[in-house]
Amino acid sequence: MKTALTIAGSDCSGGAGIQADLKTMTANGVYGMSAITALTAQNTTCVSGILEVTPDFLGMQLDSIFTDIVPDAVKIGMVSSSGLIDMIARKLTEYHARNIVLDPVMVATSGARLISEDAVAALTGQLMPLACVVTPNIPEAEVLTGSAIRSPQDMEHAAAEIAERYGCAVLLKGGHSLSDANDYLCDGSRGEWLRGRRIDNPNTHGTGCTLSSAIAANLAKGYALADAVLRAKQYLSGALAAMLDLGSGSGPMNHAFDLHSEFAGH
Amino acid sequence: MKTALTIAGSDCSGGAGIQADLKTMTANGVYGMSAITALTAQNTTCVSGILEVTPDFLGMQLDSIFTDIVPDAVKIGMVSSSGLIDMIARKLTEYHARNIVLDPVMVATSGARLISEDAVAALTGQLMPLACVVTPNIPEAEVLTGSAIRSPQDMEHAAAEIAERYGCAVLLKGGHSLSDANDYLCDGSRGEWLRGRRIDNPNTHGTGCTLSSAIAANLAKGYALADAVLRAKQYLSGALAAMLDLGSGSGPMNHAFDLHSEFAGH
Repeated sequence: MKTALTIAGSDCSGGAGIQADLKTMTANGVYGMSAITALTAQNTTCVSGILEVTPDFLGMQLDSIFTDIVPDAVKIGMVSSSGLIDMIARKLTEYHARNIVLDPVMVATSGARLISEDAVAALTGQLMPLACVVTPNIPEAEVLTGSAIRSPQDMEHAAAEIAERYGCAVLLKGGHSLSDANDYLCDGSRGEWLRGRRIDNPNTHGTGCTLSSAIAANLAKGYALADAVLRAKQYLSGALAAMLDLGSGSGPMNHAFDLHSEFAGH
Repeated sequence: MKTALTIAGSDCSGGAGIQADLKTMTANGVYGMSAITALTAQNTTCVSGILEVTPDFLGMQLDSIFTDIVPDAVKIGMVSSSGLIDMIARKLTEYHARNIVLDPVMVATSGARLISEDAVAALTGQLMPLACVVTPNIPEAEVLTGSAIRSPQDMEHAAAEIAERYGCAVLLKGGHSLSDANDYLCDGSRGEWLRGRRIDNPNTHGTGCTLSSAIAANLAKGYALADAVLRAKQYLSGALAAMLDLGSGSGPMNHAFDLHSEFAGH
């Protein structure tokens, strides 16, 4: 059984963060592990509390993992401080971590910046060069390039610029507003559009986490990057199309939509 | 889709704690949520660090969950301080939580006591009366009754005594040493032996967590207690029989052993 690690925050309501990642890895046939960067008290309507883990304790979690069950892939989600990013970069380098997928969480759906300027600098300076692929959405790509993105052509240019500047492949997610669930994948030397299926489901809590951990799971299983991304997009589409409706806000997806089992049935 | 909540610690290596619980709930067809009581840095060989969450932050997580996605069942795992137990009891009472499964983690496999005397008092005084069922192993039942348990008859007497004293059903787990994976379920008025399948697998990390969260998942789906326990025992047996072998110590089980899916296959 292949193994994957998520380094991210905990969403107690189960739809995003390490909870979404572990469900995604399990549903994609990979053994999941999780080093927690922060605890949140949140639900589908709001985040009411955040408790950040110290860099030292994050380092202890990573030591415990890498010295015993070596992950075949690593997904990095929200890390909000440069101290945590320093520790992640140090440990991933020390242990020669492979297949690193970085979801550069920086901008909330509302447009609000989620992490400090120095954390952005640490993310771009230390984590992006280690990543196999980074998965910004359009607002995040705008922060990374300093330019507005208003068309598919802008997406192509931005992805190429990020790939060249940081030496990693880029999956620039179009989202529903600009590109109808089509994403642009660029590895620096060439780029291609990966077509998605538009799903009209307002319950999109945890879509970014789910996509990046599904990519990591498929890289762990040995798929090449473009295939891993395509499979991850199909998984995400299925989880959205299952039309789970929990909570009064933007609810979680059904990560188990395709699981057939004696135990999963009623 | 039915929902279940685990209140427990985080095992970064993925085999026990909320990670095992979320995998178990997912594999048993239930939407899983998790309120974290403590973070650990651990792997299959040792626990190298524990960071306990404050009662207030645990309370915030429980508020976020119960005010938005109400769990159909609740599993409580390791809680090591009376402050955390007080908070759990208060919130579960406030929100009229249903189908509470309490795994009274008190004694390590080595025989070492894991929680303080006042935490044991809080557990028995505040949580056991709220529980639908408690799932002690033999050393824990010895702590709860103050008597040695050396035979199946001793197990029957201990379970009946605990059920009567605390007003909850008791699943006394025989384990492999005394009772060959047979457990005794007693609801105060009557008791029955639930036969298990002995699996020779040294990788038993997280078996207690997995059994109690599988019981919670099946209660959430509407099964009666004895049926929920039997289905949970079958699930646990399957996860052990899959003979996953990860890490250099007592490794985790394969929680996904019975999942058939386009995405789970290679």
